[in-house]
Amino acid sequence: MLCVCPGSYDPVTVGHIDIIRRAARLTDQVIVAVVHNPGKEGTFSIEERVDLLSESLADVDNVRLDELSNGLLTDFCRDVGADAVVKGLRSGTDFSYELPMALMNRHLTGLETIFIPGDPRYEHVSSSLVKEVARFGGDVSGLVPGPVLDPLLHRLRSL
Amino acid sequence: MLCVCPGSYDPVTVGHIDIIRRAARLTDQVIVAVVHNPGKEGTFSIEERVDLLSESLADVDNVRLDELSNGLLTDFCRDVGADAVVKGLRSGTDFSYELPMALMNRHLTGLETIFIPGDPRYEHVSSSLVKEVARFGGDVSGLVPGPVLDPLLHRLRSL
Amino acid sequence: MLCVCPGSYDPVTVGHIDIIRRAARLTDQVIVAVVHNPGKEGTFSIEERVDLLSESLADVDNVRLDELSNGLLTDFCRDVGADAVVKGLRSGTDFSYELPMALMNRHLTGLETIFIPGDPRYEHVSSSLVKEVARFGGDVSGLVPGPVLDPLLHRLRSL
Amino acid sequence: MLCVCPGSYDPVTVGHIDIIRRAARLTDQVIVAVVHNPGKEGTFSIEERVDLLSESLADVDNVRLDELSNGLLTDFCRDVGADAVVKGLRSGTDFSYELPMALMNRHLTGLETIFIPGDPRYEHVSSSLVKEVARFGGDVSGLVPGPVLDPLLHRLRSL
Amino acid sequence: MLCVCPGSYDPVTVGHIDIIRRAARLTDQVIVAVVHNPGKEGTFSIEERVDLLSESLADVDNVRLDELSNGLLTDFCRDVGADAVVKGLRSGTDFSYELPMALMNRHLTGLETIFIPGDPRYEHVSSSLVKEVARFGGDVSGLVPGPVLDPLLHRLRSL
Amino acid sequence: MLCVCPGSYDPVTVGHIDIIRRAARLTDQVIVAVVHNPGKEGTFSIEERVDLLSESLADVDNVRLDELSNGLLTDFCRDVGADAVVKGLRSGTDFSYELPMALMNRHLTGLETIFIPGDPRYEHVSSSLVKEVARFGGDVSGLVPGPVLDPLLHRLRSL
Repeated sequence: MLCVCPGSYDPVTVGHIDIIRRAARLTDQVIVAVVHNPGKEGTFSIEERVDLLSESLADVDNVRLDELSNGLLTDFCRDVGADAVVKGLRSGTDFSYELPMALMNRHLTGLETIFIPGDPRYEHVSSSLVKEVARFGGDVSGLVPGPVLDPLLHRLRSL
Repeated sequence: MLCVCPGSYDPVTVGHIDIIRRAARLTDQVIVAVVHNPGKEGTFSIEERVDLLSESLADVDNVRLDELSNGLLTDFCRDVGADAVVKGLRSGTDFSYELPMALMNRHLTGLETIFIPGDPRYEHVSSSLVKEVARFGGDVSGLVPGPVLDPLLHRLRSL
Repeated sequence: MLCVCPGSYDPVTVGHIDIIRRAARLTDQVIVAVVHNPGKEGTFSIEERVDLLSESLADVDNVRLDELSNGLLTDFCRDVGADAVVKGLRSGTDFSYELPMALMNRHLTGLETIFIPGDPRYEHVSSSLVKEVARFGGDVSGLVPGPVLDPLLHRLRSL
Repeated sequence: MLCVCPGSYDPVTVGHIDIIRRAARLTDQVIVAVVHNPGKEGTFSIEERVDLLSESLADVDNVRLDELSNGLLTDFCRDVGADAVVKGLRSGTDFSYELPMALMNRHLTGLETIFIPGDPRYEHVSSSLVKEVARFGGDVSGLVPGPVLDPLLHRLRSL
Repeated sequence: MLCVCPGSYDPVTVGHIDIIRRAARLTDQVIVAVVHNPGKEGTFSIEERVDLLSESLADVDNVRLDELSNGLLTDFCRDVGADAVVKGLRSGTDFSYELPMALMNRHLTGLETIFIPGDPRYEHVSSSLVKEVARFGGDVSGLVPGPVLDPLLHRLRSL
Repeated sequence: MLCVCPGSYDPVTVGHIDIIRRAARLTDQVIVAVVHNPGKEGTFSIEERVDLLSESLADVDNVRLDELSNGLLTDFCRDVGADAVVKGLRSGTDFSYELPMALMNRHLTGLETIFIPGDPRYEHVSSSLVKEVARFGGDVSGLVPGPVLDPLLHRLRSL
């Protein structure tokens, strides 16, 4: 199975890394797709996010980085030959949020979405909450991969 | 029973139409109220939305179109003599979102809200998701009523 | 609209009464159907439950009592000419529980189910919880209609 | 990926078949494991359930039937060399129910569970609801695979 | 126990007051912390919100008002010596929203969060919904404490 | 604050212990009440459960063990002078289950219930799931307190 893990990864957290690594163990190839949201300025540029993901996943052979701008996830998956999208799931509320998009993708091209339950140890870890904590001086080491920590602190200080 | 189906309908989808038609079969009269959200520029104007709804529901006798700007839904319902608001419900999370508004309306004037479970075939259909798909060239025929398809594609191309 | 309010009503509570009265104000006629669950011995017999409902709703003109044993709700509704089932809804979890039955009924005969949000004042009131409280001597006046209180206490004492 | 679809399948429904077929398209091999619940007498014996599944999936090459009695799912998966359990998911409430078991399996042997969103067309289809409908004479064709219909009706008549 | 009730309180509602008073009965001291959200202009200034809270809670001895700007809740709680954060909870969806923040705070400093179920009578009462109702001329007396009513109506008229 | 942690504790798990210890740090005194469910034969007797709890909590000064048979939790709490019930909460679905009981207790005597979010590390740990795993030879060390492990394995072998 070739699968795609889409996300904004602004920046990647240890929760994302956990899902990607587990997807890589279960499937033949994982393409991590950094999704560009045109209406929202990010903390990091798409290129920076790809680089931070790349460094954080350097030891995983069957993971490849890519970006998705101005396009449908279903088109992207067809172009790269992916069989399924993989998403982490933390709660029933998460599922209610993800379900319409999963069903829409299946409606459009038959693209499947499979959900992996997030590791409960990372239940509190999201890019936005990590940035909020870091912005006010909280210790976020352990919440983002090693290569992300310094760039994140540096970026937030300069804002 | 005279009931009101409020919504922004920007634009109306097949999911909306399903709820309105079912409400029309169950009650004496349905008033579809296009709600104007002052803080948000829409894809279509209120008048355009009313027109698209009108064309899409032309064959239903007991449906009437109206608009609601700068006012409370409870006042609108009192003015038109409505007994209840009708809303489609897709999930438990939907219900948690709708409940405070339903309770507030009942608190204010005793106005009731009744919920109809959405047809699962349309579980992935919302105005915002349909527009996102159409904007990137995805096929949304079958997701909006016939009269909406061309105006939607034309409008999104011109943005 | 002719609607059916099905339930085991063993016994009827103030929460049930609230939903039935509100349904009666919204529709032309309400048939309250006491459902017999063959695999479960009740606290009250079907006839007793019907009587207690009848006394508790004596002042409502457009409510009629009936019972449903060994049959499908969809057949019952077709036989009495009902357009819809009415159910109270307390939470999103309630909805997840009710949804498959509502969809099954619609699948079988097109029978609709409409949900009315329960009055929050009765959110803690269910037949089973009321009986558990009463069994251990807790005060359940105010949780069941007046005509139910004495029969309930008497019955539980004799168990 | 070699995956296991466990369930009681008493009997298999079109909802189960949908998940199994989709899992078979996504993975190299699917083992459908009929789980024996010692505390509960079934409508069909384990052997009958396996036979009905076998007939219903005769055209799928990479599906194999097996049974699981008196043992842990994690032991079964280790014995057959499975990488993951696959489960269908219908709602957020479903997820809350499944999550502790998925986490327990991962705790015991690292066994992963992946969730596939059920097809909304089958949201009302479960073995227990289908049997309840069939028992009272409702039409369940279309809710169970062809080979299951007659045996189910015959069995329920003889109860 | 010394606990903190954080919130934006823009303005305080009867739902907030209910949680704060109940927390004050259960614990030794409650500090109500008005949280400043830098990215969002409020209806009332932080000082005004503190004043309205202060008037509304004048009769409760063990409540103290404070404000939290540009800082972490965990730092604030450590500075004031608080053992726990207290939050009202209205629904399971509320809990899914609050849980990551509660777990993050516990991760950062061990700070606990305890949840009190909101009084169902106030299930429809939130600052934003109250303001929306008031803005359109709806009667919000009974939804905000006495001292808040006039300032709220006056402020909304002047917008 | 004097609080009560009720439960069947058949047997106590590390998840229960986590909630009790955290409650003990937050309040002046915790009474752990082993609730006897008359309709259900347990794996351990009430006395055995109390003993296992007692050994597992021997190092916590402000915890006291008690049992609750044939009575209301509200009466028990009044008798021991408790201000509140403390419950662990794992998910939104948990909350929907607990809410009616919490509201009923508050209705009966004003007894409060406060919820502490369970530690995500124990999200898969419940007495019933632990027993199911142990019964089939799975390793449950780490899921129950040290003093519980041998008695549990011994008891399940003898069933």
